Formats: sequence, structure tokens, C-alpha cells
Amino acid sequence: MSEVMINRLDAADGDFQDKLDKLLSYDASSDEAVHQRVLEIIGRIRREGDGALLEYTQRFDQYQLAGAADLELPKARLQQAWDNLPNDLAEGLQFAAERIRTYAEQQKLQSWRFEDADGNVLGQQVTPLDRVGLYVPGGKAAYPSSVLMNAIPAKVAGVPEVIMVTPTPLGEVNELVLAAAHLAGVDRVYRVGGAQAVAALAYGTASIPRVDKIVGPGNIYVATAKKLVFGQVGIDMVAGPSEILVICDGGTDPDWIAADLFSQAEHDEDAQAILLSPDAAFLDKVEASIRRMLPEMERAAVIAKSLSDRGALIKVRDLAQAADVANHIAPEHLELSVADPDELVKSIRNAGAIFMGRYTAEALGDYCAGPNHVLPTARTARFSSPLGVYDFQKRSSLINCSAAGSAKLGRVADLLARGEGLGAHALSARYRGR
Amino acid sequence: MSEVMINRLDAADGDFQDKLDKLLSYDASSDEAVHQRVLEIIGRIRREGDGALLEYTQRFDQYQLAGAADLELPKARLQQAWDNLPNDLAEGLQFAAERIRTYAEQQKLQSWRFEDADGNVLGQQVTPLDRVGLYVPGGKAAYPSSVLMNAIPAKVAGVPEVIMVTPTPLGEVNELVLAAAHLAGVDRVYRVGGAQAVAALAYGTASIPRVDKIVGPGNIYVATAKKLVFGQVGIDMVAGPSEILVICDGGTDPDWIAADLFSQAEHDEDAQAILLSPDAAFLDKVEASIRRMLPEMERAAVIAKSLSDRGALIKVRDLAQAADVANHIAPEHLELSVADPDELVKSIRNAGAIFMGRYTAEALGDYCAGPNHVLPTARTARFSSPLGVYDFQKRSSLINCSAAGSAKLGRVADLLARGEGLGAHALSARYRGR
Repeated sequence: MSEVMINRLDAADGDFQDKLDKLLSYDASSDEAVHQRVLEIIGRIRREGDGALLEYTQRFDQYQLAGAADLELPKARLQQAWDNLPNDLAEGLQFAAERIRTYAEQQKLQSWRFEDADGNVLGQQVTPLDRVGLYVPGGKAAYPSSVLMNAIPAKVAGVPEVIMVTPTPLGEVNELVLAAAHLAGVDRVYRVGGAQAVAALAYGTASIPRVDKIVGPGNIYVATAKKLVFGQVGIDMVAGPSEILVICDGGTDPDWIAADLFSQAEHDEDAQAILLSPDAAFLDKVEASIRRMLPEMERAAVIAKSLSDRGALIKVRDLAQAADVANHIAPEHLELSVADPDELVKSIRNAGAIFMGRYTAEALGDYCAGPNHVLPTARTARFSSPLGVYDFQKRSSLINCSAAGSAKLGRVADLLARGEGLGAHALSARYRGR
Repeated sequence: MSEVMINRLDAADGDFQDKLDKLLSYDASSDEAVHQRVLEIIGRIRREGDGALLEYTQRFDQYQLAGAADLELPKARLQQAWDNLPNDLAEGLQFAAERIRTYAEQQKLQSWRFEDADGNVLGQQVTPLDRVGLYVPGGKAAYPSSVLMNAIPAKVAGVPEVIMVTPTPLGEVNELVLAAAHLAGVDRVYRVGGAQAVAALAYGTASIPRVDKIVGPGNIYVATAKKLVFGQVGIDMVAGPSEILVICDGGTDPDWIAADLFSQAEHDEDAQAILLSPDAAFLDKVEASIRRMLPEMERAAVIAKSLSDRGALIKVRDLAQAADVANHIAPEHLELSVADPDELVKSIRNAGAIFMGRYTAEALGDYCAGPNHVLPTARTARFSSPLGVYDFQKRSSLINCSAAGSAKLGRVADLLARGEGLGAHALSARYRGR
């Protein structure tokens, strides 16, 4: 049996903010030893290419590839995985993919231009990235839904080449992941993982083409490698443990809320599931549901550890205070399990995804609601956004000056450039002003 | 006299790609000693706060503040700088600010929602960041235009608090910078700089409030500190030396083109100015203009070093090849000094800002054309965009399921969750499906 300790807090307590911040603090920060090992791996991949890649794959994945030609999984292999998928799973993935695509289409940035009074044309040209790398973890964290969530927005953006890397420990491939890659339109798949795969994507090897951006989750080595190659390529967020914050007015079935908390807690012992309610009796009911339902869960031990170490049931004064706490936490997932979620959502500034109303379980969003499940964690929703089509597009500013417009702008630029001591700027601006 | 060596390349040469890549390569990468010193500075600011900040300020800026209360420059001081500005400069800055604001307004992201056939509402809620930090370098690189370019988009986004930090070496403040801060609506200014200022913004001290994102240019210590606090806060790009790539069909006055190349080269000895033309005779004319005009430049020595080390005049086969080379370089600034820039721009995928037509000098964009002058450098335009209003906004996904929609989504989520071995996800999804 898994013992669970339920942390109960009250926002009215004097030391609440300290207690909350302690609960929230999670130091995923760079382990110096990991940093050094990853630096070395990146250096060897840059210098030695495929040779080092094969060697690391043998060492870390305990799988020996015959040669560089075996690094790539042929497209026919993806097709095969898709063809062999049980019908219900294939239909489920198709249903999910369709909804993810429909939502993503809404996010697509468009180019625009306008002309000012002087005949200058100003605008922004939006183009897709040329080539994107998608990291997919091996083993227990290999989720086909994650392949869809990362690859489909890239394809909707118009990225011509989406390159997936995924380790195959002991040579084992994940059929569901390959099937999802086929469905999502991934262009090439390489059976490598870890920091070495990230380095290969960032710098290229003879076999693996260099990409412009790397997305997708991974362990500490992958995350550290992504941080270290940032600048050489773009990266998405470095993801921390999953989080859910539920705000409930007390009107939702407590078993539902317990299950929602479990659904994040089961991801990982470091995952964080927190409930806020102004109704103390409701918190008691959810606590009772947790204790009653937990033993039935397949991943009870993980859930118990996550809830005990990082979870909490928190009494708040009212929903307004709940919104304040939510904005402070800036959770990855926020459920507004209340009578009027449209009203409450107006007070929410910081959250990755907001699940509104009693029927909107967070788990629906993990698979098939449509919005991306790749979301900012560890309070980064304060400044960053869900993964989206816009992450696979870039903008170029456009300026096309008329002769008259250029003369007018040139006079101001000349003046300001001289103010900054930049004579050649002034000269270049003046030439057009004559 | 500054000796300048003009590098001439021809894209038809067999070793052109190697030569070009060698010219482009610039390793701004982390100096390990700098990394360690910055880590230590960040650690001390986190532990000791204002005390360490005052000590570092005394050491690095050789300026002793009486106490923490002196860290902030009062708003009246900004007003004073603005009031004392010569009229022509005040008008020039106002003209520039107005154009930057007008362009930025076009970039503002809007929230959206739609309802699907099952009555589920899906959408995205866009909100401004709560608080942003703006780093402004001291000394020679302190540009009032940079204050406008960083602060105005944040204010257009609706950021309630824009906090500026800028070092005042030997106690000297830059009046133009303070005046620009006043004009741009900066909310608070602190007279600190370096890695210690970045750390203070990222973690907060008793005097300096913690921000959600830090933007603005700085030296290697500032850039390293920004990289290290990334995750704790958001950051903009880590900027490298300035770059210009000019594509000219030979029809523009060679003196104009020489001045445009100078205008980037004068920024920095590491700056990069490259010209592409299919017209070899035109390249000769530009070379002659460079040699004739260079001695007249105030910053001739910097320009000569930059052009000699990192510049080039490159003969290309035609404009199509010029576009290919431009997409490979992914320049910060790209001038299309050609007869039909509207046609050529369609072939451009990778560039920070594109200056179209013979009248559109890059220098106009540095000050007052309207688009931001904070642009991706060092080939990062392959995956990133100019600084814009969108950098000061974030998105939250919205999902509000109807009872029927939830039941339908719940069946698929249940199936896929079980496929991934996540029982609590399946349970949470099933509850709504009953």
C-alpha cells in the first residue's frame, strides 16, 4: 500500500506565501557534472560525427547499429507500424490529429503590409522554418500523443522537413510512436537519443541533417544539451515536471477532482497537483476521495509520492483569491471547475492551458481536445506560451521607402545618428535625403 | 590612415561555400572563466541582494552609492533629462517613437475563440507580461534609439511595469538614454549594470523587483547572465555583432552602397558587412568608393578592421543565387537594392529585416522607419524574429467542453491514455464520459 500524506494549507495563514513558495520551488537547475558530460558529448559529435553517434548509442542505448546507414528508420517502417496498429487506436489517433490540426490552423501567422502617408510600405513577411528536429524520448515516457502535438503544428506552419530522433534502447522501437510519426507526416526518423542526438541535430553529421530548431521533451541530458545548443539552433522550452492547479467552487463531484489531480500526479513523482477551493468541507470530501480511490490506481505509488511531496489542498477566501494564487503559481494546466468559468477566466493572466467548466477534464487536453499539450511549466507561463504553429514560423520586417519618404526619414536618422556618434549611419541616411 | 583589405569572392568558385562559412563563423561561445564568474555573481545577488549589488557596482562601475535607496533614479530625473534635451533631438526622438508605436500596434496579438460542432469552445487568451526588465548598456554603446525600440513594444503590449537597468560608470548618467526612457514610458530606472543587474532583475532584491522577462543588449557578462537566468525569467535573443548583407543589381550609386556597408561596420570591429552583386564592374566601383570614402569616416579604424576581417564583396551568377546565399547567411539586415525588390523578396526566407529598393538605407531602420532594430543575429534569423509586441505577450489555451463534447472526447482520451499506460488519465477522462 502507498501511504499518502495530504498537505492542507489555508491562504489566510500568515505564513501561507512562504509555505506555498516552498511547495512550488523545484530546482531542476544544471547539475555541474551533467553539464560537463554533455559539453563533452556535444564536442565529440561536432568533431567526429556519425562515428561518435554510433559509439554513444551503443554505450547508452546498449544497442549496436551495423553502421551509419542504419541510423535512419526507413519510411516503410513507419508505414508498417501504422498499418499494424489496432483499428481503435488508429481511429483514436486520427481523431486526435484532426482536432490538433484544426486548432493549429487558427494559430497560423499571416504576413501583412501597410503604406504610410509618405508612400513608405511597412510590413512583416512570415515564413516557415526550413527544417525542424523533434526529440521523442524512449522507454516509459514515449508518448504517441507527444509526437502528434509536436509534429502537426510544424507541418501546419509549412515546415518542409521534420526530422525525428528517438532512442531505441536494446534495439526496441515503440510501434505507437512510429505510427504517430507516420500519421503526423514526420519526414525522417533516426534511432538515436540523448545529448548525442540533440548535438547531431544542432550541428549535423554525415547522416543526420542540421536543423534550425529542436523541440520535444527529454531527460536531464537532453534538456541540458538543448540549453547548450541554443543559439546554434532554436529550442522550445526546457520542460519541467507536469503540474495541475484546480480551482473548484465546491460544486463538482469530488471523485472527478481527485481523478484530475491523480492524472497529473501519475506522470512523475515530481509532478505537482494542487487544489484551491473556498469550501473547506469540499476539500475534506476530495481528501476522502483521494484516500478511497488511490489504492485502485495502477500508478498508486507514483501518485502517492507526488501528492505527499508536492501536492496540496488549499483553502482560499474566495474565487478572486484563488485567481491571485493561480497567477502567482502560473500553472501548466489550470482547471476552472466552477459555475461561471467565463467570468473567472478574465482574472487569469498566467497559465499554459485553461480548462473551463466541470466537464473539461485536463486529460482531454492531453490527447484530443485540440490545443497543444506542450505547455510552459515551472512558472514559465508568466512569460511563455503553449507550443504552437507560431513556434515554427518566423517573421522578417519589411521596409520599402519612397523617394520622398526616404528623404524625410533620412533627416531624422541623420540627426539621431549624429547624437549617437555614428557618422556612417548619418552619411548613409543623408544620401537618400538629397 | 586605416588600411583596409577588401575581400573579393566569387560564388562560382569551387571553394566558395567553405570560404563563406569561414567568413560567417563567429564564436561568441561561452568563455568558461566568464561563465564561472557570472555564476558566482548570480549566487551572491540571490543570497545577499542589495548589499552585493552595491558592492559589485562600486567594483565594476567605480561608483559608490550611499545606499540601496540610491539605486533608483527618481522619475523627476528622467523628466529633467527630457526637459533639457535640445529641441531638434526631442522632436527627432518623438518622430521615431511615434513611428515605432504605429508599426508595433500592427503586431499586437488578439485573443480568439471558436466553437466546434459538439459545442466545445476552444480558443487562446492573450495577455501582457506583468513586469519586464530592460537592460541598457552604459558607455559608448548606450543608444537612446535602443531604449525606444525595447520599451515601446512592451508598452504597446500593455506591460504595466517596465523596469530599466543601466550602469553609470564613475557615476555618469547618459542624458539621452534617460530622456528616451521618459519618452518611452519606462516605469522605473536603476543605475546598475553587468551580470549583477541581470541577476537582480531575475531574482529580485529588496530594492529591485523581480521581473518576468529581460530584454536588451549587453556585453559578454550580461549575455552570459541572461543565458544563465533563462528559465527563471524569459529573455530575448542573445545578440551577436551587427550584420548587413546588401544585394545590389548594379543600378544603385556605389557611394550609397559603400555608406550602407560602413554603417554596420562602424558599430564594431566584429560587425559584418557583405555585398552580393551579379555585376563584377559594380563591385569594382563599390571597392573604389570604399577606398575613397573611408578616410573621411570618424570611425574609420573600426570600419577598416571590420571590413578587412569579416566583410566581403561577392560576385554571384544572378539575383536568384544571391537569394540562396542570403538564405544561407540569414542576415540581421538585408538590403535589396534592386529594380524590383517586390519580386526578389518572395525568394527570401531567412532575414531579420529586409530593406527594399534603392532608397531604403538600412540606417533608416535603425532609428525611425518603424520596425524594430532589435533583430536576430549570427544566423538565428533561420528560426527567430525581430523583437516585437508579441515578445511581451503570452498565450493561454482555452478549452470549455460541453457535456456531449466531453463525453465524446473522453472516450478517445480514455483509449489513448490506456495505450500509454496512464490509468488516472483514463479514469479522469471516463468520468466525464458517463
